[in-house]
Amino acid sequence: MPALNEDQLDLFRATNYGVVATLGPDGAPQTTIVWVHEEDGRPVFNTTNARAKGQNLKRDGRLSILVWNKDDPYRYVAVDGVAELEQDADTTHMHAMSQKYTGKDWHRPGDRLIVRVTPRRIYDYNDD
Amino acid sequence: MPALNEDQLDLFRATNYGVVATLGPDGAPQTTIVWVHEEDGRPVFNTTNARAKGQNLKRDGRLSILVWNKDDPYRYVAVDGVAELEQDADTTHMHAMSQKYTGKDWHRPGDRLIVRVTPRRIYDYNDD
Repeated sequence: MPALNEDQLDLFRATNYGVVATLGPDGAPQTTIVWVHEEDGRPVFNTTNARAKGQNLKRDGRLSILVWNKDDPYRYVAVDGVAELEQDADTTHMHAMSQKYTGKDWHRPGDRLIVRVTPRRIYDYNDD
Repeated sequence: MPALNEDQLDLFRATNYGVVATLGPDGAPQTTIVWVHEEDGRPVFNTTNARAKGQNLKRDGRLSILVWNKDDPYRYVAVDGVAELEQDADTTHMHAMSQKYTGKDWHRPGDRLIVRVTPRRIYDYNDD
């Protein structure tokens, strides 16, 4: 299993945005923007059980998550990997993600899901 | 076939960036950042025959392309669709893309590919 280096993890630690690609029922890719972070070297984000992303990942855990420096899209990392899903009991995790990006607790109720990504392949782009 | 509206096409016309998700040999998603534009209502980008993206699309033309407002990532559109590939003879198309984003012709030689996307599903996000 490849490991993200500190420079790559910093992209996930900052208030950058990520695009997550998952697979629909027919195996075609779908994309959305998510808030991101990292835990113990793994990319992490939060979604809902109701959304396509959550449904897709329960069916097929393979995904790709790309995070770019919000001040410089010519600096990004894409991580292809496999999702590990955990229920976000009491929305604790989503509140923490919302605090990171907005300084406030999350404002919408919902049955949320923590997604942690075990990397299989790391693509590092830095056009300086 | 769903059609992109003018507001969505404007995201592709501006100097915004896109993330393209394609399928690897095993059907797992891969993501990269691309320059984008539109032609006759279809998203368009440019890649090389040598890169994974080009190889992936020749094998399986299904993709998702997401473009966000570079000043506001809470405004984006994701288009799931099918790629139509054309050889970029003389790099004419890539020069035009480079002119749009850098004001200069493209500087690297290479066997390039124009990718036009026929939309199957459009996801519009606008968190205002």
